[in-house]
Amino acid sequence: MMENNDNKLQLGMVVFDGFQLLDTFGPLEMFGALKDKVDILMIGERSGIVKSSAGPAVVVDRTFDEITTLDMLLIPGGMGTRREVNNQPFVDAFRKLAERTPHVASICTGAAILARTGLIDGLKATTNKRAFKWATSQRDKVVWIKQARWVEDGKFFTSAGVSAGTDMALALIQKLFGHDVAISVANGAEYEWNEDPHHDPFAKLNGLIDD
Amino acid sequence: MMENNDNKLQLGMVVFDGFQLLDTFGPLEMFGALKDKVDILMIGERSGIVKSSAGPAVVVDRTFDEITTLDMLLIPGGMGTRREVNNQPFVDAFRKLAERTPHVASICTGAAILARTGLIDGLKATTNKRAFKWATSQRDKVVWIKQARWVEDGKFFTSAGVSAGTDMALALIQKLFGHDVAISVANGAEYEWNEDPHHDPFAKLNGLIDD
Repeated sequence: MMENNDNKLQLGMVVFDGFQLLDTFGPLEMFGALKDKVDILMIGERSGIVKSSAGPAVVVDRTFDEITTLDMLLIPGGMGTRREVNNQPFVDAFRKLAERTPHVASICTGAAILARTGLIDGLKATTNKRAFKWATSQRDKVVWIKQARWVEDGKFFTSAGVSAGTDMALALIQKLFGHDVAISVANGAEYEWNEDPHHDPFAKLNGLIDD
Repeated sequence: MMENNDNKLQLGMVVFDGFQLLDTFGPLEMFGALKDKVDILMIGERSGIVKSSAGPAVVVDRTFDEITTLDMLLIPGGMGTRREVNNQPFVDAFRKLAERTPHVASICTGAAILARTGLIDGLKATTNKRAFKWATSQRDKVVWIKQARWVEDGKFFTSAGVSAGTDMALALIQKLFGHDVAISVANGAEYEWNEDPHHDPFAKLNGLIDD
């Protein structure tokens, strides 16, 4: 694959109309700081542009069909997930790419799409805490974790809502490149990383746990 | 102006090749949660698309010339600021728009461009802590603050590096819509807001202060 000839890791971020901005660009900020190690591609069902839930639109770099191999595949949440969970060609294309990608992560309600693929059946996962009921109802075979900033199980990372994706991205950077690199990336972005996947005040805030 | 006919506030985010992703989309995530109160426009020197420093490209909604009035004008940092501080037509277009906009904010090294306009001469401001020397050297008439997550002076907000823009955006939301709205927006994004503009561990980390 052309993009692989300089030995950088290839990261694909899936986008769709109604994707959530910070789900997408929090993680990409962190991976984007590793320009000597990671290349970023925005992946869409069709070429052209897609519009975020907040309005701003981004350019699709590759369609699902144009991607052969990736090292990391991420999918954000956003109101568009309500449509895409029922878009079977989209779910299938995402599943096929996820099956052959070594590291796969969802942010926020992106977990609903990941769950719909069946690839995380029997595995632990989390999702947005305000939309927890909707997202988890998409697949009852997943072991949904109510209180977690993010969950790692096998090759899958799933984060809680929106800003949690940034903390999870740093955990994936730590896994791939070590703790010092993750801290350096966080410090470069003047970001106080929540390194503890169990620190999640939003489970209680949204009534998912009692204490 | 057409966009104003529903009484929403109009927010313009300036983008340029080499803009920083999280500088831009952290704040826009927060304002984007207020869809009944705020419309977001991406503003560029030319129509078309601009490419972030990390790779992903976004669509310019309006050129400087196409904007008549805004309620808020924001400008991010990123490596592209090194070029744009010396792009006088860009600085002039930004200045003209900033002069007539009630709330103006910079994120990270976006402060260097804001400073180049002369509009914050004699005012307090801050910027990225790793690039502090470069950014502050762009204009010695600004009262540069070494330790601050963000600084408010008159109609201008300036934030520290990258992720600090998100905390500043919530402070601007608080100013415009009240504390409860800011907290609600932060909670909706599962974001633990640093509400204290003086909390800034990155000044010391980058050797700007001794203790």
